[in-house]
Amino acid sequence: MQIEAVDFFYVKMPDVTTEGDGSQDALLVRVAAGGHVGWGECEAAPLVSIASLVCPRSHGACQPVIASVLGQTFDTAADIARIARLVKRNSLDLLQTDHTLSGIEIALWDLLGKRRQEPVWRLLGFDRAYAKKPYASVLFGDTPEETLEKARGIRARNFQAAKFGWGPYGTGSVDADRDQVHAAREGLGPDGILLIDAGTVWEDDVPTAAARLPALAEARAAWLEEPFVSGAIEAYAALARQSTVRLAGGEGCHDVHMARHMIDGAGLGFVQIDTGRIGGIGPAFEVARYAAAKGVTFVNHTFTSNLALSASLQPFAGLAGHEICEYPIETKPVARDLTVERLVPDADGMIRLPDRPGLGMAIDFETVRRYLVDARIEVDGATLYETPPVPAD
Amino acid sequence: MQIEAVDFFYVKMPDVTTEGDGSQDALLVRVAAGGHVGWGECEAAPLVSIASLVCPRSHGACQPVIASVLGQTFDTAADIARIARLVKRNSLDLLQTDHTLSGIEIALWDLLGKRRQEPVWRLLGFDRAYAKKPYASVLFGDTPEETLEKARGIRARNFQAAKFGWGPYGTGSVDADRDQVHAAREGLGPDGILLIDAGTVWEDDVPTAAARLPALAEARAAWLEEPFVSGAIEAYAALARQSTVRLAGGEGCHDVHMARHMIDGAGLGFVQIDTGRIGGIGPAFEVARYAAAKGVTFVNHTFTSNLALSASLQPFAGLAGHEICEYPIETKPVARDLTVERLVPDADGMIRLPDRPGLGMAIDFETVRRYLVDARIEVDGATLYETPPVPAD
Repeated sequence: MQIEAVDFFYVKMPDVTTEGDGSQDALLVRVAAGGHVGWGECEAAPLVSIASLVCPRSHGACQPVIASVLGQTFDTAADIARIARLVKRNSLDLLQTDHTLSGIEIALWDLLGKRRQEPVWRLLGFDRAYAKKPYASVLFGDTPEETLEKARGIRARNFQAAKFGWGPYGTGSVDADRDQVHAAREGLGPDGILLIDAGTVWEDDVPTAAARLPALAEARAAWLEEPFVSGAIEAYAALARQSTVRLAGGEGCHDVHMARHMIDGAGLGFVQIDTGRIGGIGPAFEVARYAAAKGVTFVNHTFTSNLALSASLQPFAGLAGHEICEYPIETKPVARDLTVERLVPDADGMIRLPDRPGLGMAIDFETVRRYLVDARIEVDGATLYETPPVPAD
Repeated sequence: MQIEAVDFFYVKMPDVTTEGDGSQDALLVRVAAGGHVGWGECEAAPLVSIASLVCPRSHGACQPVIASVLGQTFDTAADIARIARLVKRNSLDLLQTDHTLSGIEIALWDLLGKRRQEPVWRLLGFDRAYAKKPYASVLFGDTPEETLEKARGIRARNFQAAKFGWGPYGTGSVDADRDQVHAAREGLGPDGILLIDAGTVWEDDVPTAAARLPALAEARAAWLEEPFVSGAIEAYAALARQSTVRLAGGEGCHDVHMARHMIDGAGLGFVQIDTGRIGGIGPAFEVARYAAAKGVTFVNHTFTSNLALSASLQPFAGLAGHEICEYPIETKPVARDLTVERLVPDADGMIRLPDRPGLGMAIDFETVRRYLVDARIEVDGATLYETPPVPAD
């Protein structure tokens, strides 16, 4: 096959707020080759990734991403890796590249799976996809009372695990944060798996983060996620040394090297990888195997559509011991309705990847049409990007 | 003062080639506050950084860069650091952010210097700016004969040091690379400081890089730069253990954490930082001090205009032992003519930062007008960016 087309569709809610909810927009990627079509999604600022796809060349190592994708021959998983390496080499000095590449790489896996009539997890060499235990992923309420209600609602929906993050957590006093964490525990009940996400709020400030540890231990939090930004490895390690609560992090990693450094040096119990950021399914799979070898649990990071969720579950589908998975339950309609199929908990409360070709998720084009952004980029009179037509159903 | 305006000017050569020459375009940044104007430059794919400045918000941690800059109060160096932290927090999930922020941060330092009537290096706390020994930075010729001629030309211009990089180096045989390196040494003469830049060509392949070490040692290369991509710390360390030639790298670092990890783990003799990528002058200054404390020599990375060169020399201006500096001598007219003043070697062949306010470099607006790119970004009928008018001289 030859890659004939790469199209980006930017969709968003009419009103995008400053809340920490990444499901308010999405960047869908369609790749066409040999009569097949694959779909992927970048977890990224859509307009910026669109610009990186089509921008004028700056020099040999700062080329638009599309220059290394269009026209490439593509028949095997090894071709996907080769194309990804070419993109990273030719767009080395373009910082946005890894986020942009991610959606394309995912679409290539989807396309290859459709052509081979195999799910992606089987193309990766897994002989089965284990059921994953979803944690309901939500934002903290503005008040402990709101958080308590959210947690009760999650429990009523039979989730065995829940994660509360962002919102006011970490921005006020130690006592205020304690109240939030205890409210989450109370609502979830004594037997639920409670996870707390600080959303990098303390940057690399170890003492300020450490002051929150006693309340997290009291509430039996199973992890503290992202006390610091992804690169702050020394801060992670210093906090890990004084914490009985295990640390989780890594969603900011945009290449395998960064993820390996966090696994090796940050004292993590869990490494969280977003396939829509790290370069796609291939790099995430590499990190999953590395984490498994190092005794660190791999977890997906996903806060958008079920297409992105399927992509982020493939890389560790066959790793039995890595059981927990992020499962967003408060997604906005633009993300929630983006796929025809949905990944919903089964009778045991578990998430199972479909045994369907590729990512196993058809796009709901009506949703794409409803939320489609009309964008245009012109340089010196030439139109480099305009919103492509949405396929008929 | 309050930040009233942030404007990006994208300039480029009419024809941009795939050669590894980063001087074929530039992204100029103008910041206005309190009746003063400061100028900076992003080392970045210009259109992508423009998009990241003005893109629609995706969520609270993925906002356009300008949202955290416009309207901010700004009177001290501490304000620059505060604004930079705000940008990094509010645009955390926007990968291009660090490159975009860099040009703005540099412009803020230039503006503060103009207001205080002090050069930036003095605002950083240095009581003097030491003369730096420039290495003429060029691309390898396509053949050893071309490289020999380039090296002779550099010697004829009285440079005591030269760096050859990119081009065919590393892409062919070990013998072909040996011929290139020996041609450079022959042309430079036995006493010149010879530096070799592999331009990340071996990604993280240690044996392939190691095969080039004997020729580099024979030709007495003072460093081998970027055998690998910036994050490949283990590969750097493995090569360093078997090399008598010292390693240089770090230009790809886009935050202080990455640079510290390379200093700590990569076995570098030299860490090369581009102020136009790492977030600006403040982060580069932090890395310079860290490198000095760790016994690693700090060097600027600069391949564009003299504005970028001034910005990249400020962070280590007062570090006496860190004497060598990158000095591009083959820049395209768009970069070469971008400033009224030029930083040229003095009678001793040394580069001296001007004792003028800010970066000490006035913009040549005629050059900006000549090479200005007409760009426009529209989203849902609203114009988010259009090329701003160039100031009158």
